[in-house]
Amino acid sequence: MSEPIDDFFAVIPAGGIGSRLWPLSRAESPKFLHDLTGSGVSLLRTTWDRLLPLTGPERISVVTGRAHGAKVEEELPDVSLENVFIEQDPRDSAAAIGLAAAILHRRHPDVVIGSFAADHVIKRQRVFEFTVRQAVAAARAGYIATIGIQPSEPAVGFGYIKTGEELVIDDAPMAARVERFVEKPDLATAREYFSDRSYLWNAGMFISRADVLLDELKANEPALHTGLVEIAEAWDTDQHDAVVERVWPGLKKIAIDYAVAEPAAEKGRLAVIPGQFDWDDVGDFASLWGLVGDGKRNGVTVLGENANVLDDGASGFVVSQTDRVVAMIGVENVIVVDTPDALLITTNEHAQRVKQTVTALQKQGRGSVL
Amino acid sequence: MSEPIDDFFAVIPAGGIGSRLWPLSRAESPKFLHDLTGSGVSLLRTTWDRLLPLTGPERISVVTGRAHGAKVEEELPDVSLENVFIEQDPRDSAAAIGLAAAILHRRHPDVVIGSFAADHVIKRQRVFEFTVRQAVAAARAGYIATIGIQPSEPAVGFGYIKTGEELVIDDAPMAARVERFVEKPDLATAREYFSDRSYLWNAGMFISRADVLLDELKANEPALHTGLVEIAEAWDTDQHDAVVERVWPGLKKIAIDYAVAEPAAEKGRLAVIPGQFDWDDVGDFASLWGLVGDGKRNGVTVLGENANVLDDGASGFVVSQTDRVVAMIGVENVIVVDTPDALLITTNEHAQRVKQTVTALQKQGRGSVL
Repeated sequence: MSEPIDDFFAVIPAGGIGSRLWPLSRAESPKFLHDLTGSGVSLLRTTWDRLLPLTGPERISVVTGRAHGAKVEEELPDVSLENVFIEQDPRDSAAAIGLAAAILHRRHPDVVIGSFAADHVIKRQRVFEFTVRQAVAAARAGYIATIGIQPSEPAVGFGYIKTGEELVIDDAPMAARVERFVEKPDLATAREYFSDRSYLWNAGMFISRADVLLDELKANEPALHTGLVEIAEAWDTDQHDAVVERVWPGLKKIAIDYAVAEPAAEKGRLAVIPGQFDWDDVGDFASLWGLVGDGKRNGVTVLGENANVLDDGASGFVVSQTDRVVAMIGVENVIVVDTPDALLITTNEHAQRVKQTVTALQKQGRGSVL
Repeated sequence: MSEPIDDFFAVIPAGGIGSRLWPLSRAESPKFLHDLTGSGVSLLRTTWDRLLPLTGPERISVVTGRAHGAKVEEELPDVSLENVFIEQDPRDSAAAIGLAAAILHRRHPDVVIGSFAADHVIKRQRVFEFTVRQAVAAARAGYIATIGIQPSEPAVGFGYIKTGEELVIDDAPMAARVERFVEKPDLATAREYFSDRSYLWNAGMFISRADVLLDELKANEPALHTGLVEIAEAWDTDQHDAVVERVWPGLKKIAIDYAVAEPAAEKGRLAVIPGQFDWDDVGDFASLWGLVGDGKRNGVTVLGENANVLDDGASGFVVSQTDRVVAMIGVENVIVVDTPDALLITTNEHAQRVKQTVTALQKQGRGSVL
């Protein structure tokens, strides 16, 4: 058994709806509250369980929206309520993670924080822990550390991290400097990256001292930094509500990648630890099918506790949130998502377009199912 | 306006579930009770309306199961209750039509009866009436008359009637003798039949004097005939229940085609009138799609009063009995049938296999949705 890491706090931003997974994921029931792996518990809970050996229950914080506070506490009965940070409204990842950094820095000046998405799937726990411990060591050495995922295919759906020179850091034998971040590539470029082992997927995991992250934020987005610090100073006081209501709505919406990681990389302050565990952001139903079906595409793969599927000469993926009989006859490679009030029928190739459908439904005023 | 035909009774056997149209059609809610054309009324009601000008409301009888008696009376408020013949349990078409023939013959010795399925779709009412009037004339001349449908394609799903020599019958200028009945052909044979105009589809419409039909039944299936006559004698008496309960369960299950039509054809007693109206037995979802979409296969065709379909780059056919959003993204030629407790996803090519699915569900004890 490994011990929790001293002064290390995990931050779980639990905000995104995951609209590419509509109608499963939706505003009322976002992706992180779903059991997408058939494990019996939500992705959020799985994330908690994965981090627990590194932090202990007292040092995991969750940043979430007002609508989900109660659900988060229900899913994580051991969470300290003072570590559930409720956002007034969603203002993107720099505000969410920056808020946690500012509050935790005020409470624990030497804290190292690591942000981990609430709705990703990771296998090989020991490798994950080993990687995070190296990232914390790099953070202690003053770097902002990220974990880059060793690509398993030439994916076009992720940004990439170009690994540079090796860094000599105690307890972080695999650390390297990040040369640069690269936006989602086209397929030809993705293939180049895939054959070149120095390109890793950007999984959005950032580990650093809270003060280092805040300094970087201050340098790049000073107004955002000032606002977050002001809120953090009031957070544990009776001024909380008044300050949040006044300051939060004016904060800039920007991703942590742009506000912190990319500028830090340009200054040579970003370290990367290659993560050689299995990672999946379960970005759409094609990805979920691969995950649930273990990559197999023959026959019909089923996800859903009460799913009641009958197939005859069919192949595809059925996600069922109902107990209705789903009969698939002769169709090939069809994705069916059956929920009480909405049904989606699509294919692997079109799974990315689901987000547009959600937008279209919104425009047509059919928002009741979103 | 044409007058009803004297002494002519229509018989509507309303028994079949239409299990190729599961999950729309099922034991509790058979095909004939559905509005499959978007007309706003059930197929049974459409059948009634079609026959009304030929018979008037007093001379249409319906043979149906115990479970559907109340529904039939609700759909047909003008039906005479003495003309609704309830079957103890389903015993195929010879028993159903034979029962009506025996009862009606007892009540009206000179009656001509015509049997017309409760769940077919016919367009061109005037041509239909003109054809039935000829069939009644052939029946008066002592023939068992059938209406053969002019094929519109080389269908393999129907039996065929081979037309023989012309018959000279007053008021039935198009009558011919039936040379023989042919079982459902393979595609090559169906193509031959299609190019040879003497082959017509067997639509299961039989028109004859009740006594002629009963005599033919007596010759071929004497036990069935005896049982039906015994039941008919008791039908309008206080012995009804006792006799039905004793005799009906022992009656042979056989189709009217085998018990009456084919043997009559062999003896030269079967006449055919070609029906040059549009006829569709709506045998499966492929057929229904063609009917509802008027043969067009581009885009998404929708059937369902409260259907709520959103499609993006998709083609297919959606039948919805719910008000759920159905989103079709990128799938092609997919048939989706959405009911509160069962969902079917198939293709045109596999629509015939739906019946096997129903059988499989039955075997697996999932009969609650059948």
